[in-house]
Amino acid sequence: MPGRKFLNVPGPTNLPDRVRRAMDIALEDHRAPDFPAFTKALFEDLKQVFKTTTGQIFIYPSSGTGGWEAAITNTLSPGDKVVQAVFGQFSLLWADLCRRHGLEVIQVDVEWGEGVPLDRYREILAADKSHDIKGVLVTHNETATGVASDIAGVRRILDELGHPALLYVDGVSSIASLDFRMDEWGVDLAVSGSQKGLMLPTGLGVVCASPKALAARKQAKFKRCFFDFDDMIRTNKDGWFPYTPATTLLRGLRESTDMLLEEGIDNVIARHHRFAEAVRQAVSAWGLRLCAKEPKWYSDTVSAVLVPEGADSDLVVKYAYERYQLSLGVGLNKVAGKAFRISHLGDNNELMILAALAGTEMALRDAGIDIEPGSGVGAAQEYLRASGSW
Amino acid sequence: MPGRKFLNVPGPTNLPDRVRRAMDIALEDHRAPDFPAFTKALFEDLKQVFKTTTGQIFIYPSSGTGGWEAAITNTLSPGDKVVQAVFGQFSLLWADLCRRHGLEVIQVDVEWGEGVPLDRYREILAADKSHDIKGVLVTHNETATGVASDIAGVRRILDELGHPALLYVDGVSSIASLDFRMDEWGVDLAVSGSQKGLMLPTGLGVVCASPKALAARKQAKFKRCFFDFDDMIRTNKDGWFPYTPATTLLRGLRESTDMLLEEGIDNVIARHHRFAEAVRQAVSAWGLRLCAKEPKWYSDTVSAVLVPEGADSDLVVKYAYERYQLSLGVGLNKVAGKAFRISHLGDNNELMILAALAGTEMALRDAGIDIEPGSGVGAAQEYLRASGSW
Amino acid sequence: MPGRKFLNVPGPTNLPDRVRRAMDIALEDHRAPDFPAFTKALFEDLKQVFKTTTGQIFIYPSSGTGGWEAAITNTLSPGDKVVQAVFGQFSLLWADLCRRHGLEVIQVDVEWGEGVPLDRYREILAADKSHDIKGVLVTHNETATGVASDIAGVRRILDELGHPALLYVDGVSSIASLDFRMDEWGVDLAVSGSQKGLMLPTGLGVVCASPKALAARKQAKFKRCFFDFDDMIRTNKDGWFPYTPATTLLRGLRESTDMLLEEGIDNVIARHHRFAEAVRQAVSAWGLRLCAKEPKWYSDTVSAVLVPEGADSDLVVKYAYERYQLSLGVGLNKVAGKAFRISHLGDNNELMILAALAGTEMALRDAGIDIEPGSGVGAAQEYLRASGSW
Amino acid sequence: MPGRKFLNVPGPTNLPDRVRRAMDIALEDHRAPDFPAFTKALFEDLKQVFKTTTGQIFIYPSSGTGGWEAAITNTLSPGDKVVQAVFGQFSLLWADLCRRHGLEVIQVDVEWGEGVPLDRYREILAADKSHDIKGVLVTHNETATGVASDIAGVRRILDELGHPALLYVDGVSSIASLDFRMDEWGVDLAVSGSQKGLMLPTGLGVVCASPKALAARKQAKFKRCFFDFDDMIRTNKDGWFPYTPATTLLRGLRESTDMLLEEGIDNVIARHHRFAEAVRQAVSAWGLRLCAKEPKWYSDTVSAVLVPEGADSDLVVKYAYERYQLSLGVGLNKVAGKAFRISHLGDNNELMILAALAGTEMALRDAGIDIEPGSGVGAAQEYLRASGSW
Repeated sequence: MPGRKFLNVPGPTNLPDRVRRAMDIALEDHRAPDFPAFTKALFEDLKQVFKTTTGQIFIYPSSGTGGWEAAITNTLSPGDKVVQAVFGQFSLLWADLCRRHGLEVIQVDVEWGEGVPLDRYREILAADKSHDIKGVLVTHNETATGVASDIAGVRRILDELGHPALLYVDGVSSIASLDFRMDEWGVDLAVSGSQKGLMLPTGLGVVCASPKALAARKQAKFKRCFFDFDDMIRTNKDGWFPYTPATTLLRGLRESTDMLLEEGIDNVIARHHRFAEAVRQAVSAWGLRLCAKEPKWYSDTVSAVLVPEGADSDLVVKYAYERYQLSLGVGLNKVAGKAFRISHLGDNNELMILAALAGTEMALRDAGIDIEPGSGVGAAQEYLRASGSW
Repeated sequence: MPGRKFLNVPGPTNLPDRVRRAMDIALEDHRAPDFPAFTKALFEDLKQVFKTTTGQIFIYPSSGTGGWEAAITNTLSPGDKVVQAVFGQFSLLWADLCRRHGLEVIQVDVEWGEGVPLDRYREILAADKSHDIKGVLVTHNETATGVASDIAGVRRILDELGHPALLYVDGVSSIASLDFRMDEWGVDLAVSGSQKGLMLPTGLGVVCASPKALAARKQAKFKRCFFDFDDMIRTNKDGWFPYTPATTLLRGLRESTDMLLEEGIDNVIARHHRFAEAVRQAVSAWGLRLCAKEPKWYSDTVSAVLVPEGADSDLVVKYAYERYQLSLGVGLNKVAGKAFRISHLGDNNELMILAALAGTEMALRDAGIDIEPGSGVGAAQEYLRASGSW
Repeated sequence: MPGRKFLNVPGPTNLPDRVRRAMDIALEDHRAPDFPAFTKALFEDLKQVFKTTTGQIFIYPSSGTGGWEAAITNTLSPGDKVVQAVFGQFSLLWADLCRRHGLEVIQVDVEWGEGVPLDRYREILAADKSHDIKGVLVTHNETATGVASDIAGVRRILDELGHPALLYVDGVSSIASLDFRMDEWGVDLAVSGSQKGLMLPTGLGVVCASPKALAARKQAKFKRCFFDFDDMIRTNKDGWFPYTPATTLLRGLRESTDMLLEEGIDNVIARHHRFAEAVRQAVSAWGLRLCAKEPKWYSDTVSAVLVPEGADSDLVVKYAYERYQLSLGVGLNKVAGKAFRISHLGDNNELMILAALAGTEMALRDAGIDIEPGSGVGAAQEYLRASGSW
Repeated sequence: MPGRKFLNVPGPTNLPDRVRRAMDIALEDHRAPDFPAFTKALFEDLKQVFKTTTGQIFIYPSSGTGGWEAAITNTLSPGDKVVQAVFGQFSLLWADLCRRHGLEVIQVDVEWGEGVPLDRYREILAADKSHDIKGVLVTHNETATGVASDIAGVRRILDELGHPALLYVDGVSSIASLDFRMDEWGVDLAVSGSQKGLMLPTGLGVVCASPKALAARKQAKFKRCFFDFDDMIRTNKDGWFPYTPATTLLRGLRESTDMLLEEGIDNVIARHHRFAEAVRQAVSAWGLRLCAKEPKWYSDTVSAVLVPEGADSDLVVKYAYERYQLSLGVGLNKVAGKAFRISHLGDNNELMILAALAGTEMALRDAGIDIEPGSGVGAAQEYLRASGSW
């Protein structure tokens, strides 16, 4: 098939050419004397991406799922109680991982399309006078429904109640794209992966731990080795790793971190908002609705779009890919067949977004959904022109 | 700037990933014993791209301009008479090259927006009873105005008149994208460059010569060495080159030739037609006109679009590039400020075309040209959907 | 520094250009409809690399250490007894990982420079009438000392004794380079990583499990999620993964697997033997000794070379890297300062091996070790010439 | 074949990874508004490589042969007299090019293995009282025989005689590797190509012209267009080109120029001398002789090595390539079968040189030439160790 594919799934995201080339290198000796200087600077600069000065970054050759596991197993013990809201496939999977590790999960079920329910978190935590709850888990951006949650709000509750539970945030599809503030929000464990806002191939799980989280590891009784913070702390200190690191991805991470810092994290966040809003203008022009029920839940990294009753969202995704080389995300689990997802996460510009919208328009019509051709693209164009910084 | 640029100038065209990777190699010894097997197969397969079995391909480390010079200097002599229609910047430049080499150019000036004037060619050639005219030159696709000419028509005239002049075709922006038939149309010298339909970086001038053209070189008195057919014929025969060839580009040419033959040349041509038609649907929806005056002149590789009186086409190009990372072509010479050009040449797919149209729409509006946002994209979408082969 | 570095550490190994280019691609949707066809063929073909027809391959975005953990946690339970010989840094680390997971490790300490002690394994297993020992662990190739062990011998013991323990093999630096036969040797869990014989960047842990191992997972009580076989089995069956896979590395693995199968696994093994023998000829010509005590222990992937009493092997490694851009391996733990390591693992040819030897010769002399310049290179040359297949 | 090939022909030379990656990019619009800033800086910085402040650089999409033609046709007229020494295949070809263009070549035949004969040049020029000789041509480095000539000496003669002829230097295999001083030596036309000291793929002819040379073009009557200085001067002034430039190679040239300037041109020259001397130490240790007859002729970019009477140098080259993936240069023309060539030009380091020597040793022995295995490598090692800057 001629031309290049358009990748609008919420991870992996588009690989910038600079990053691609930064990784197109010979393999290297991770025990070379000049290696530590490289890694130490990288760890330091990555902190800016997490907006932390006191946190510590851990980089695993794994994935976001590995990051979830690392965050949990290094800071909790089997049988520990955690509270966790489930409102989409990824919050569901994380809760499942917790249970499979033997945690007692107080699962707060929320309608898909909403985010973390602050009131119910408050109730549960307020009721926990004995502080049995050791962890409060929040999926910052639920990739399945395009819903972003209020992390600062959760922190406020914990603070107001004086509850000592650790705050765990799944930032896989939010960090380096949505507003995320490790220190200011008092996040204890933040989990990310390489293939989203960090604009890299899959293969790194990146975890940031607060000093309080690091202290908690002394009591954490989960068996661990591959993901153990201790081995990392001991070796990273001098720029090494406890086992062979994924050096190629680290070189890519160096480049993508440079790109993020050159653009400025807040500019990156603003750019994501602008492109997300353009997509939402298009959805509105099509006369369709988002899965996210209210503007406060709107995700700036992915939009899940509901198709009209009787239509099949999977057909949209199928035609987009087969006919127009456009990868959209399918609806998962509860929204299977009802929603498709357009990612606007990562390395995008105006025309990449408009191309995705144009392809979506064709696929919608191919799937029998009667939207006006060009209507979404036109609405997005006007928003983009009006919001441009030139 | 995040994201990737969109390249819609009529050359260089988009580099397919396969070709990019085929050239991402170590350098090699062009005198290695296994090199000839590579080059001989390449020369042979390239003939299919030119639709020739009797022609001979010459590959120079140069450009299309070098190809023009090679075609002329190998087959003509200073003072020779040639007839040549000028209807755009590139036909003009070729005529200039001929004159600077001391040819006597019977220049047929045609309004920009039209193509080769068969009647006037017929008159001139019919009047040339003594066969003083040694060459008839035609720019197959005038890149400046988006005009394609009728090569078969020129051949018919030569045949009907029994005129022995060589037929020279500038196929730089047509070969491997527009219908081109070396043998069937009796083309004697066809000139192409690497950075158009061959989907490569600039750096190769590719010339195809008919047996009659090859015979003519015996009498051709131009001084030549770098471009001399003889050195090429002598060395290419065994798979070598007279001087160091651009091996990296040759490896790329192998890949792009494979891609063309895998898709099928006629399918490549049909694809170019389909995308060109989508662009024309958009232009029509915008209420704008093409520089090409009649459908018979419409180029399937590039569309030059006239802006309304009083508007400045250069502004469209400027905004497209600066604001939307979209490279369009400016109007050249007589159409400077009056037309901009959208290339649909080379490795494109539906969304790449639609992205270019979406960017053009925004740039048009930024330049104060009041088109309906999304109108062109919508029209193109509908055409693409209707004409798809699924 | 001009020129390219020479990488002769035992992993990461040299990245072949074919593999480098196969990974130099855009990111892709791992849920695309054409993805399963790719993964299913890859899983199938990889089996040939392990010489198995009944085993099942698991590919994790992790490292060899992750592979160790996956093998253990999917098939054993906390408190289970395993027997394991320790004769180098990597067998030591694996034993450590087992203990940290709460296994009871019957550690068989062996002098560094020797391999798995069949007699002592036999004694221990014979004494285990109640079959309390659930796992027998062997490091096939101890990278720290350049020692290869007799896996078939361990299997024979188990068979002779009718002992049902699972046989775990660390094949990280042996599979796809040393002779390894999953099925014939009755290996139950074989662990490999991407950055050795598979000629890829670090980032994949590859595990192969026998049907008996798969059956054992039903009783295995370790908590697991990221490394859980079950999730993999359930999703891999249809060509998917339970979480985002490292698609870029998978594309590379496709290419490296193709390269291995094109060359033929047995030819790959023979090539490794030939280059290892060339290195040993050089070591002998230098008048130095290997860490491996007897020819039966000689590793064909890495040679650990002892420096004379009083000399400092770290200086050799330091000079090699700083002065000659040659990465050698340092001596680890018990052989720190006493041995340096030359890897001959992965994508090498004659001149790459000779270059490493030439650099080693200079570094040896720089470190005050009086070997004859060119002596090792000359000896290796003569062996290579005599053993060439032309 | 596993591993990577070793490229020791005197062009193309090894492509540095930095340059490879700098060229691994999307194609670009050479008329983009930000293009001139790029080209103008490049032209300026390249002057340092030629050691000129008053010269003007011309970059053609062509090859060194194209550069020869550009230098001649822009500054001379048919029938002009030039003096030129021929002492190898490349000086021979340049003289041939001159004659084919209709120049009257006073050819000074010199024994192959010697360089430019200053005495005979002096005689001829002294006898030319009427200054009929318009050009004095010198091949700085005769690639066929590994002979470097004394350009400064030729300039001294011209100055002493007050002879106004232009001084043409073929610097294809010398510039950016041997000591070359455009301004100090009063060179008028210097010709280079991309695939030698500039460490790029073939595809650029780079010419530097002195103010005197530029003035001469006004009288130069050769027909020219593709290679015309005028078009370049007119467009380059503002950062453009008269036709589509080879942008990918220009991006590579930017990187290789950066590399040369970062290392420092004089350090680059010293490095070439050091590696050349190491090769000569090896040749001497083998008991063989160079084609270059005296040390003053020794080339620091390529060594042509004579094989003993009765031996066949082509066999050495053949075995090196087929058995050891080492590309050496064959003997050309008068030294065909008698000499083979080892290039030490471009991006090399110690181990790359030693690998080439090790491969040469094996190939020599395979070809029945009885040298001591390891002797050359050992001698080169000792020289490299002694001459290292650490």
